[in-house]
Amino acid sequence: MHKEEAAMKKIGMLTSGGDCQALNAAMRGVVKALAHNIDELEIYGFENGYKGLIYENYRILTSKDFSGILTKGGTILGSSRQPFKLMRVPDENGLDKVAAMKNTYKKLGLDCLVILGGNGTQKTANLLREEGLNIIHLPKTIDNDIYGTDVTFGFQSAINIATDAIDCIHTTAASHNRVFIVEVMGHKVGWLTLYAGVAGGADIILLPEIPYDIDKVVDAIHKRTKEGKGFTILAVAEGAISKEDAALSKKEYRKKLAKSKYPSVSYEVADRISERLGLEVRVAVPGHTQRGGSPCPYDRVLCTRLGSAAAKAIMDEDYGCMIAMVNGQTKRVPLADVAGKLKTVDPKSQMIKEAKRTGICFGD
Amino acid sequence: MHKEEAAMKKIGMLTSGGDCQALNAAMRGVVKALAHNIDELEIYGFENGYKGLIYENYRILTSKDFSGILTKGGTILGSSRQPFKLMRVPDENGLDKVAAMKNTYKKLGLDCLVILGGNGTQKTANLLREEGLNIIHLPKTIDNDIYGTDVTFGFQSAINIATDAIDCIHTTAASHNRVFIVEVMGHKVGWLTLYAGVAGGADIILLPEIPYDIDKVVDAIHKRTKEGKGFTILAVAEGAISKEDAALSKKEYRKKLAKSKYPSVSYEVADRISERLGLEVRVAVPGHTQRGGSPCPYDRVLCTRLGSAAAKAIMDEDYGCMIAMVNGQTKRVPLADVAGKLKTVDPKSQMIKEAKRTGICFGD
Amino acid sequence: MHKEEAAMKKIGMLTSGGDCQALNAAMRGVVKALAHNIDELEIYGFENGYKGLIYENYRILTSKDFSGILTKGGTILGSSRQPFKLMRVPDENGLDKVAAMKNTYKKLGLDCLVILGGNGTQKTANLLREEGLNIIHLPKTIDNDIYGTDVTFGFQSAINIATDAIDCIHTTAASHNRVFIVEVMGHKVGWLTLYAGVAGGADIILLPEIPYDIDKVVDAIHKRTKEGKGFTILAVAEGAISKEDAALSKKEYRKKLAKSKYPSVSYEVADRISERLGLEVRVAVPGHTQRGGSPCPYDRVLCTRLGSAAAKAIMDEDYGCMIAMVNGQTKRVPLADVAGKLKTVDPKSQMIKEAKRTGICFGD
Amino acid sequence: MHKEEAAMKKIGMLTSGGDCQALNAAMRGVVKALAHNIDELEIYGFENGYKGLIYENYRILTSKDFSGILTKGGTILGSSRQPFKLMRVPDENGLDKVAAMKNTYKKLGLDCLVILGGNGTQKTANLLREEGLNIIHLPKTIDNDIYGTDVTFGFQSAINIATDAIDCIHTTAASHNRVFIVEVMGHKVGWLTLYAGVAGGADIILLPEIPYDIDKVVDAIHKRTKEGKGFTILAVAEGAISKEDAALSKKEYRKKLAKSKYPSVSYEVADRISERLGLEVRVAVPGHTQRGGSPCPYDRVLCTRLGSAAAKAIMDEDYGCMIAMVNGQTKRVPLADVAGKLKTVDPKSQMIKEAKRTGICFGD
Repeated sequence: MHKEEAAMKKIGMLTSGGDCQALNAAMRGVVKALAHNIDELEIYGFENGYKGLIYENYRILTSKDFSGILTKGGTILGSSRQPFKLMRVPDENGLDKVAAMKNTYKKLGLDCLVILGGNGTQKTANLLREEGLNIIHLPKTIDNDIYGTDVTFGFQSAINIATDAIDCIHTTAASHNRVFIVEVMGHKVGWLTLYAGVAGGADIILLPEIPYDIDKVVDAIHKRTKEGKGFTILAVAEGAISKEDAALSKKEYRKKLAKSKYPSVSYEVADRISERLGLEVRVAVPGHTQRGGSPCPYDRVLCTRLGSAAAKAIMDEDYGCMIAMVNGQTKRVPLADVAGKLKTVDPKSQMIKEAKRTGICFGD
Repeated sequence: MHKEEAAMKKIGMLTSGGDCQALNAAMRGVVKALAHNIDELEIYGFENGYKGLIYENYRILTSKDFSGILTKGGTILGSSRQPFKLMRVPDENGLDKVAAMKNTYKKLGLDCLVILGGNGTQKTANLLREEGLNIIHLPKTIDNDIYGTDVTFGFQSAINIATDAIDCIHTTAASHNRVFIVEVMGHKVGWLTLYAGVAGGADIILLPEIPYDIDKVVDAIHKRTKEGKGFTILAVAEGAISKEDAALSKKEYRKKLAKSKYPSVSYEVADRISERLGLEVRVAVPGHTQRGGSPCPYDRVLCTRLGSAAAKAIMDEDYGCMIAMVNGQTKRVPLADVAGKLKTVDPKSQMIKEAKRTGICFGD
Repeated sequence: MHKEEAAMKKIGMLTSGGDCQALNAAMRGVVKALAHNIDELEIYGFENGYKGLIYENYRILTSKDFSGILTKGGTILGSSRQPFKLMRVPDENGLDKVAAMKNTYKKLGLDCLVILGGNGTQKTANLLREEGLNIIHLPKTIDNDIYGTDVTFGFQSAINIATDAIDCIHTTAASHNRVFIVEVMGHKVGWLTLYAGVAGGADIILLPEIPYDIDKVVDAIHKRTKEGKGFTILAVAEGAISKEDAALSKKEYRKKLAKSKYPSVSYEVADRISERLGLEVRVAVPGHTQRGGSPCPYDRVLCTRLGSAAAKAIMDEDYGCMIAMVNGQTKRVPLADVAGKLKTVDPKSQMIKEAKRTGICFGD
Repeated sequence: MHKEEAAMKKIGMLTSGGDCQALNAAMRGVVKALAHNIDELEIYGFENGYKGLIYENYRILTSKDFSGILTKGGTILGSSRQPFKLMRVPDENGLDKVAAMKNTYKKLGLDCLVILGGNGTQKTANLLREEGLNIIHLPKTIDNDIYGTDVTFGFQSAINIATDAIDCIHTTAASHNRVFIVEVMGHKVGWLTLYAGVAGGADIILLPEIPYDIDKVVDAIHKRTKEGKGFTILAVAEGAISKEDAALSKKEYRKKLAKSKYPSVSYEVADRISERLGLEVRVAVPGHTQRGGSPCPYDRVLCTRLGSAAAKAIMDEDYGCMIAMVNGQTKRVPLADVAGKLKTVDPKSQMIKEAKRTGICFGD
């Protein structure tokens, strides 16, 4: 083998699942660190997540592609959702997706694949690792629900946007003595709602991890009125659930949701409060704005560090891991240890206790 | 009469209708200009809009109340909606509201009443003028629909928030090749949606003033797909209306809305597009966030100028007018000339033509 | 002549002078409007201002170049300062610059040249017009000093940044009872300082157009202290000038500046106040941050409109003009009428009177 | 003793040293948590830092004082710098300051004193603890240099502002191919510059902890030019120091600084680069804007948690500590263990290595 060939590193890269704010910053971190430390380098960017790997859609990326994208939202590679549970199922043309991905990898002679994504993405990344590919995973999600890392990128940027929404609602709620709900994203976990709720000074915070009792919620509003505070702000997670619904089986609950007349859970909470208290409750749904826009400085630092640490792992040829942030230090965490696990808000955690002590009602 | 009494000016002040961003900045402008130019001054702040005037709820405001509020959202006086059409109707205790307001005014010996509010507020302000009170009106609304002024305060701040929402949606829409709707406030007019839509680079903008043809909307999305643009962003006014619905009588349309399963109009637009194109359409509803938060610098300058001009009108004892901004100059516009009129977007205006020329589809 | 050739439009484009926030938005406006209305179109982007035209440095731009740049600061074409007064002077190799520019224009067979820039740029644009080229000028500058248009693009974005700086200083000044100066850009005119100063609630505003008397400035600070206001904020234009200095000849003043130990004028103002009052005066110089970053929604609407109107002028083959915004309408203003003129703040204008009425000291 | 007297808690509170963004949020956290958990409570707010404690300037604060201040910059109590080394020196009237502070504390019958401040403040807090007072310290500073806590409040908000400045400079630097310096605060440590520099994508970062070699800096700029990157951005700490100066004794260096013609260190760096490369280098000094404005969501969460944890310590009557954030958990750290120590950037830390790997030059 020629020396030149030996030296050439071929790195694949893809972003999968719902997009979020610092995907480009993370890819830039990886590539900047590699380019400054490896003489011969070829970056293959797969388009629209695993789809690009399955169907061999990619483009060669140069340092120019990574210039000026530190602050750019979205992903220059595009993304798509490819459910893990369908990965073993052939596509409409009978194509074996896993075999196809392995094939693309081998054909291009890749040294490793850098995969940016959330929980579902991580499971497929782990599957590819089991299939023998060299994988580095970077933990992306506004939901902050990835096990094995203190924080995911996108999370702080999303907190900022959701908090902005609550801040804006605050002035109007106070001027009109109204009850307002801000529905916060976060999928099935409450991290985003908890942090944005505390940051925004919400009076009531409803999380999936702490099923709410509507009576407690109504009492909390009542108490505020008695104390002369004419308005109340609720931060409600899109996955919030009542005590009654939490008692249902998953299947029953899904059925109930499917039949619901409400486009999302906070409209239901609004109606329930409204009925009890005989007053109008307004709902704001910032929705996908929470995963868009330019990444905040916190996420840019996080991603530059994670990306640089990923590059080091590649130089060390130490694969099969997620690059995590633990106690302020980047760390390689084996995918085998974390794939398939979910990090949820512990109702007995220090932070929940601290929040409750300041008077925030969690509906329990 | 003693000289001292003669010199003392007594000014009432109230904010009425939906709150918006620079109410405090406007009141600060009035009071700063008065306090620097009138030796003896007493400011009566009526609480929660006309309610405070009707039921004699007020507090004496000092310069300290106006310190540091230039950047503060909401209104330090509180607000409430008091529909004009109910003003002549006695309250639940048989109280004649108009007589009560006049009574409060006389009792306190006010020299004039500075009223900050939108169209409805303006009609009542004009009624009080007809009843003999000295009135100055300041044009407040994020809707920008007040006749006789080029711009209202709150409008630019609301544009900024709605545009931020569209910007955030942009990165996520582009990454996922999706169709997104951002529902923008604005009541029955399209100003806010037009400006935020153009500023945010929306591809399709639906306004109340230009009833949309769903086929044209679908065609525009189609055309983008054919041009290789995988995503489309629609800015839809909360008051947007289809051609069919615009053909209904007002009564029929209200009935239809009341029976609608959608919490707001953009969910219906989403469903209609979704049916035609067989793809998911996401909706974001920033809602009341658009009228909250700190006023933008544009609105702060506007309000300082309007407030200062209002103070000058008071010093000149020239009442019965709205302080407007016309061609960059503050101007006193007789309330009699403007009350009850609505400023709407002209579908044939220069700006609509300019927007259409760049390829924006308005659904017509 | 073939029909195809007849239909093909060739448009040159360049950005010259100091950059500012919505240059890309304006170019996007022009190109989107042209591309939607002209079948055959070729855009030549000259690099780094007039330099690119002189030395034939250009690239063909496609619609892809203009995608996603509505919100992007800076200029995708690069810019450079090419002083008007040197345009008639040959370059170091004896090249006649004006002849070279004409030559490039003819050689490429351009139909017209769209030039984005400020006052100096405009003068050269007018020179090229006199030389027989088809010119459209778009008024760009954070200084807002272009004659013939109510507003220039970049101005509002710069106001926002400068106001942010004053806002930040406000909280720290108030907490520490200190005197603070924020130095605001604006070249030789005071527009930016006036608007940011009023928007930021500055107590003292010093503009080039109103030479300041240091005694008046010191008195104003004194008066605030007596009223119990422990802090004072000054917005000082980078071109602010004292009464004494304003009495000097231009040449003498330039000499004085050249010998000054201060990097900019506000450090001198700080020292003078400090000496008189025996207290520390802090200076913040946001500097070039004021012309950077993403354009605000106001500027994006402005530029989309100006750009679209420029495209219309091109379609109408109506050249030799600046596209201005006058009383809310875009308008073609002959370059011959405006080139070489400067729009300054009128010390007797309505806005200055309004600002003074609220108690703002201008040092006169 | 009556039961009522026994139950009444009297808490003093003061903010000392340079102000920063989340002081009010932290005080709100303490008071909200106390008020929800202690029936009888009296809060004494001392004005302008230790001054208020020395001279008995205070006001009783009610929950109303803490309403709406979560997002408010500065400090509602005012602040002042009272150097630790002068605490044992009598004031101009011969007053023993330490005795006076103890006296005020005893006279009012305080149960404890909550002190918000940085390193200097902490030293005095520890002195008061040694003198027998019950002290809780909350770690406030944009400099992030307090030993014993992972992060201080104000730090992340300041990062955001400094990063914004770099972002704005980025677009203008890129458009003009210029070398720009943004001077970042941080006192004698480099935390703020390091984080803002990485977040802003600075090419060169100069910190007090890593004395710079001007040749290395010039080489880095050169290298960029050779790679076709026409612009370079330097983030320079206000405390940055050259290798030569670092070799001086502290006394000699102070003398040198006192005689320097430059208002701050980055003007000197600019001149040195300018001389070597023969090009203009521009400087932006955001200055005190970095400690002003509304706290970011990160700091609001941090302060709510620290404040709530401080309240718990008070309820537990566990005094003499700083409430720190360590590995994501609030923690009581004995003042005796940390007072007088400084947390600096370790040039061999993981983060510096990660930053260097991506190509950032630190001038060493």
